[in-house]
Amino acid sequence: MPPLADIYNKQYLMAAGPTPIPPRVSQVMAEPITYHRAPAFVATYARVLENLKAVFQTSNDILCFASSGSGGMESAVANLLGPGDPAIVVSCGKFGERWIELCQAYGAEVIAIEYEWGERADPAEIDNVLAEVGGPPKAVFVTHSETSTGVVNDIKTINEVVLKHNSITVVDAVSAIGAIDLPQDEWGVDVVVAGSQKALMCPPGLGFASVSERALRMAEGQEGRRYYFDWSRTAKGQRQSPPNSAFTPAVTIFNALDVALSLILEEGLEQVFARHAILARAARAGIAGLGLSRFGADDPNANTVTVAELPDSIDGTAVPKLMRDRYGVTIAGGQSHLKGKIARLAHCGYYGAFDITVQLTALELALRDLGWEVSPAGSGAGAAQRVFAECGAPQPA
Amino acid sequence: MPPLADIYNKQYLMAAGPTPIPPRVSQVMAEPITYHRAPAFVATYARVLENLKAVFQTSNDILCFASSGSGGMESAVANLLGPGDPAIVVSCGKFGERWIELCQAYGAEVIAIEYEWGERADPAEIDNVLAEVGGPPKAVFVTHSETSTGVVNDIKTINEVVLKHNSITVVDAVSAIGAIDLPQDEWGVDVVVAGSQKALMCPPGLGFASVSERALRMAEGQEGRRYYFDWSRTAKGQRQSPPNSAFTPAVTIFNALDVALSLILEEGLEQVFARHAILARAARAGIAGLGLSRFGADDPNANTVTVAELPDSIDGTAVPKLMRDRYGVTIAGGQSHLKGKIARLAHCGYYGAFDITVQLTALELALRDLGWEVSPAGSGAGAAQRVFAECGAPQPA
Repeated sequence: MPPLADIYNKQYLMAAGPTPIPPRVSQVMAEPITYHRAPAFVATYARVLENLKAVFQTSNDILCFASSGSGGMESAVANLLGPGDPAIVVSCGKFGERWIELCQAYGAEVIAIEYEWGERADPAEIDNVLAEVGGPPKAVFVTHSETSTGVVNDIKTINEVVLKHNSITVVDAVSAIGAIDLPQDEWGVDVVVAGSQKALMCPPGLGFASVSERALRMAEGQEGRRYYFDWSRTAKGQRQSPPNSAFTPAVTIFNALDVALSLILEEGLEQVFARHAILARAARAGIAGLGLSRFGADDPNANTVTVAELPDSIDGTAVPKLMRDRYGVTIAGGQSHLKGKIARLAHCGYYGAFDITVQLTALELALRDLGWEVSPAGSGAGAAQRVFAECGAPQPA
Repeated sequence: MPPLADIYNKQYLMAAGPTPIPPRVSQVMAEPITYHRAPAFVATYARVLENLKAVFQTSNDILCFASSGSGGMESAVANLLGPGDPAIVVSCGKFGERWIELCQAYGAEVIAIEYEWGERADPAEIDNVLAEVGGPPKAVFVTHSETSTGVVNDIKTINEVVLKHNSITVVDAVSAIGAIDLPQDEWGVDVVVAGSQKALMCPPGLGFASVSERALRMAEGQEGRRYYFDWSRTAKGQRQSPPNSAFTPAVTIFNALDVALSLILEEGLEQVFARHAILARAARAGIAGLGLSRFGADDPNANTVTVAELPDSIDGTAVPKLMRDRYGVTIAGGQSHLKGKIARLAHCGYYGAFDITVQLTALELALRDLGWEVSPAGSGAGAAQRVFAECGAPQPA
């Protein structure tokens, strides 16, 4: 028998961000640097800005920042809130808490609607709070896909409620965009922020804000301490012909995004969402196959991260550690008070059927090492496989 | 004779940012994405943080932001200035003006010490202004290498003046760091900000702030509207063991920076500065060889960009355009009111002798196309070559 090291020699990044990226996307970053004002890059930049609109399902300009996804979030706070302004924040996990921290950092009066980690936001409660607060239009900050718990909020209904109160919804879609349907213009969502490193299949380094004209006008009326994340400055540059960037753009990541967006649009948004849905279904079946419970409120759109509750009888903090250090499969465990309680299986972006197989197999091996027997071996991956099989075999081209 | 297109088929990025980057740096970005909490990346991250200190010549933590260099600049303004605070800004070009805009965006009372583009800041004037203003410690914002004009300010003397007034100097060293000597700790400079895409030989996407303990304390006393660029939050993460990043780091650019920093430290900082100095000397000789004047105040440290004044008799805006579109060599012309008046030859980062040869040759070809004859042909590159020859031939290893 070969030593263990010989068979688990490959490394698998199976996190919900940074996510694995397609080889064609990686390769383009190794090409020589392009000058950001040179025609070759300007053409790429213009194409990316157009293709982003298609992926965000909007006619808005998608404002681009060289930043992490949190920079996109901060841009919304910095442009929409003045000191002492009320900010309604809906939070059901780590990224909801980030909205709270951000709004507080900008001196807003935060009205937090908080849920336990694993719960979903209740649109009726948001309705009640908006009715109680009253007054002029408010900004309501909410998370679409809460990566820390796998929960996906019902943005369609939440946004309807917010619009009823003449307010605007600001959606953190960092891990949702390109994975879960969010037809921004059809639903009339005012602001959607995102990042490059999740379902957009790129490295981290670009933050986005898709901002309606109404929200842009609100921002223009808001004196603020902002420059780098200023929406007007960014929009002004991007609306020039050819489009221009207010600051030196992260050219390598734009080149990567150009390739990634073309892959997404080639596959077709509907197909991309369907693929995520099937992978989520398989991951759920796999978790059941391992004898574990799924963590968090369910939703047919909860398709970026599927979370397993770990058995109380084992040391849960050891699970992601063993999966990574012994088997080469990097997944995320729980954060904060969920540390050691959950394992998060990712299928967000460049993920396919066998990535679910690999994650479930590594999880099963780690569980077995910790004394949680699954019998027969392969029950997790097998359950996922049955879901794949239900989809039928792909037809030859 | 072959058609022109056949001999000018190669593209040369010869700008002062984004700059060309070494193949080894490019290649590492094509490797699979690493999870930012995985040991492999954490080790890279820790090594980068250490090596940045060596390149910044400081024991400060170098705070890293996923942003352009302007993000590094904004971090200084956001952390040091409150609304209505006086900000003394020294400006002699486009990037000095950026300091002014940034300080204004943050509501500061800007006291601008402005010079014509092409002039250098006068430390005695800064001394006078600080004396007039009086009062508690101020932040003085200044540009080290003003990329828009090629001028390099005398940071050593400026900082001495500022320290005399018990104030702190904030240096934009975006295009200087790794090209021009700036021994931060030896000189006692409080804040140095920089970016990845110039002499650090990386793509754009990382901003840096090297902040003294004194400046960190000043920032902590400053209530501010900041989150993403908050120094304390960033320092807290980076000072954990192992270091941690407050937000998802731009992992591909960190991996690139890891390689680039190792190349810089392998060459040795002193050698790197000497190389830039020789290239600058050759570029100056080449400009004279073309019969042109050098633009801007001189300084022995003006070693990142060498600027040629273009003859009044030709259409200067056509020069960089012809160099790029006809000869494949991308350099920068003048910005703002210098448009059409200057051509900027870059030697900032991954540049060697023949990059000067190529730029001068392409410039000469473009000038000739526009009716400015240089005789004999090759006088620009020839003059540069004589400088190279004075350095002697490298010894066999």
